[in-house]
Amino acid sequence: MIGLSSYAGVMESLMNSAEEQQPSSPLTNSWSKIQESSKNQKPKGVGGFVLVHAGAGYHSESKAKEYKHVCKRACQRAVDQLKAGALAVEAVAAALVELEDSPFTNAGMGSNLNLSGEIECDASIMDGKSLHFGAVGAISGIKNPVLVANRLLSEAQKGKLSAGRIPPCFLVGRGAHDWAVSHGIPPCPSEKMATKFSLSAYKRNKRKMELAEKMDTGHNQTKKRRQSSENENGSGCLDTVGAVVVDLEGNVAAAVSSGGLAMKHPGRVGQAAHYGCGCWAENACNMNPYSTAVSTSGCGEHLIRTMLARECSAAMQSEDAHQALLEAMQNKFISSPFLTSEDRVLGGVIVLRCCRCVEPQPSQNIQGILVEFLWSHTTESMCVGYMSAQDSKAKTHISRLPPGTVPGQSLAIEGGVCRLMGVVD
Amino acid sequence: MIGLSSYAGVMESLMNSAEEQQPSSPLTNSWSKIQESSKNQKPKGVGGFVLVHAGAGYHSESKAKEYKHVCKRACQRAVDQLKAGALAVEAVAAALVELEDSPFTNAGMGSNLNLSGEIECDASIMDGKSLHFGAVGAISGIKNPVLVANRLLSEAQKGKLSAGRIPPCFLVGRGAHDWAVSHGIPPCPSEKMATKFSLSAYKRNKRKMELAEKMDTGHNQTKKRRQSSENENGSGCLDTVGAVVVDLEGNVAAAVSSGGLAMKHPGRVGQAAHYGCGCWAENACNMNPYSTAVSTSGCGEHLIRTMLARECSAAMQSEDAHQALLEAMQNKFISSPFLTSEDRVLGGVIVLRCCRCVEPQPSQNIQGILVEFLWSHTTESMCVGYMSAQDSKAKTHISRLPPGTVPGQSLAIEGGVCRLMGVVD
Repeated sequence: MIGLSSYAGVMESLMNSAEEQQPSSPLTNSWSKIQESSKNQKPKGVGGFVLVHAGAGYHSESKAKEYKHVCKRACQRAVDQLKAGALAVEAVAAALVELEDSPFTNAGMGSNLNLSGEIECDASIMDGKSLHFGAVGAISGIKNPVLVANRLLSEAQKGKLSAGRIPPCFLVGRGAHDWAVSHGIPPCPSEKMATKFSLSAYKRNKRKMELAEKMDTGHNQTKKRRQSSENENGSGCLDTVGAVVVDLEGNVAAAVSSGGLAMKHPGRVGQAAHYGCGCWAENACNMNPYSTAVSTSGCGEHLIRTMLARECSAAMQSEDAHQALLEAMQNKFISSPFLTSEDRVLGGVIVLRCCRCVEPQPSQNIQGILVEFLWSHTTESMCVGYMSAQDSKAKTHISRLPPGTVPGQSLAIEGGVCRLMGVVD
Repeated sequence: MIGLSSYAGVMESLMNSAEEQQPSSPLTNSWSKIQESSKNQKPKGVGGFVLVHAGAGYHSESKAKEYKHVCKRACQRAVDQLKAGALAVEAVAAALVELEDSPFTNAGMGSNLNLSGEIECDASIMDGKSLHFGAVGAISGIKNPVLVANRLLSEAQKGKLSAGRIPPCFLVGRGAHDWAVSHGIPPCPSEKMATKFSLSAYKRNKRKMELAEKMDTGHNQTKKRRQSSENENGSGCLDTVGAVVVDLEGNVAAAVSSGGLAMKHPGRVGQAAHYGCGCWAENACNMNPYSTAVSTSGCGEHLIRTMLARECSAAMQSEDAHQALLEAMQNKFISSPFLTSEDRVLGGVIVLRCCRCVEPQPSQNIQGILVEFLWSHTTESMCVGYMSAQDSKAKTHISRLPPGTVPGQSLAIEGGVCRLMGVVD
């Protein structure tokens, strides 16, 4: 074992920006040119790495700045936790709180309104060390759903309840709300969670729906369904948030949070609360050489039926991380046998994979963790941010599909490498 | 393609009864002696096979008769559907309705009461042909939760909703109830769903809990948790129900329904509503030589975290079905890395796997479907029933762990083979 106190962080990454890409095929491939950015920093006692997303969907240029800002703040929150000695699972929850608190993201504050004009949120978290999982679905009146999911996870780790009852890992609706409040998580009036933007989007969507239904009058049900499927489903409404973290012990964790699709039916639960679909984290073990963490975003039903988080995690055990993710997104998502009836398969993932590495140096043995981080999406854009505990600030990026490609049928994939180094005593 | 009209059913199965077993190891292995029971029946135009369970848990001798009866009726219901030309998914739903309607099972009528004395049910269904999935969680006031799950599945198959909205595959709580009623499924007053038995069990459990909590007063929380985990968790309360079906076109389907753990927290959702955990069904395809269908029962949290239905389905693509299920139950459930902190891992599965087979006969070519059906459990007992469309009545069986073995650490596995034959024109 390497003591925490002997670690230093060395960051070795930079992406191609989307603007620089000249892709020749629908599969955009801008795998990183590796640049070394902070090798001269002094070794410090703590470290780790965080990658966050503010959703796969559509991020207009006008809102790009806000999305980048919140990603930056979320990375900083996670790094603050890591520097204070927190484990990956605590750091990932901290990042999520910041993402949920932003009125611009579709999670926590400012979430999409459902058909009844209410906010119902989904969130989940997974700890790669204990492999415990906590999730809430269709929860109302709680500012930070991820904190309820995290509390379910930590309560379950304490063992059984009175009279041998097994603690729950997944709570929904009113019961989830009441459990949260009884565990000290304060309620938040629903009207405080709606924003001017979410309320006006609701009114706009409601008018659109009424118009679409009026236009369909007189047509038969099948025809109506087919026709209306041509309408846009506002891929701007898919901006679920999430994060993946590795701490300097090499533990990984992942989390995800979402307000769900705009105008969803009350009680609808999407991938963000679904085991294996919204997030996944697994430390390396005898069977798996790599620790992996994944968080997804996009159309919940597509992400549930393809179990995308777990599929990507499993794929990352192959040698070439970039190739593995590319194939997983192509074969297990866009061309998934589970989605043959869908014309456009919308989603995105962020992925971490880590393994121990040793690098002999002139004076001392440097041992550390090699972190490969990637994102891929079939939506028009995806906003990400990332930061190592040794960086002074986070990097952010809005990845876009190349012009002329079709969302839901093409994908973009990008990533980088970061080395978290520690001096062996 | 073989026409439906040219099929006959030939049943080739019989189990060792649990009483006859003389197991020499904790892994009870009573793989069937194959007997041919109905080879002389005349070819008929319809067919198929159904396997149902009334839960993995503890089935007392005194209640065994009731459990067997309801399994028999459920098989008959599915077969009636198959004979009327229904697809597997419709037949499996029919079997579930019968299982839910029994006051003896922990599903639909007579479900366990939660901490607040209310009934909240989970159910899901999967169609191996379309790979569509429907699920409801923590739904109250609906007599047959599986019918809501099935309706969600069939509505999703119709395509998008007005204004391009994606139809939900998973609804929970009040929203699920309201959606069901608005789709013509009648509400049922909750008090009608409770039985004398479930009400008296609730009172008994409540007293037990109060006593356990009183005894723990003065101890610290950790100690309290550890101690109480020694108490029995009434494995008799795990009697979720489920079924797997293959129709004569070779389509498979699976379904599961549960009232959840007794004294669960309101809003708790178990494996029965969870994709990949409660049930799984996948027709054969390019990648998979076998069609597989799985339905699970037991401790929801254990079944969620091990994703047992999907794991068993994937395992069944190996050559030896019995060996594959044995290894899956051992490695992916009892010894799962996801459940290392659990001392007893409680659950059970029923499994179908099917492939096309050809058997040349003197006068005509017989082509058909070879159906292997299995069950395995780590709980004290599991009640199953099975029937081919050519049988006059269902066979039922209560499988038990051998005396002296420890529930949650040992397993029983049994099964049989059935041939659904058709004459090629």
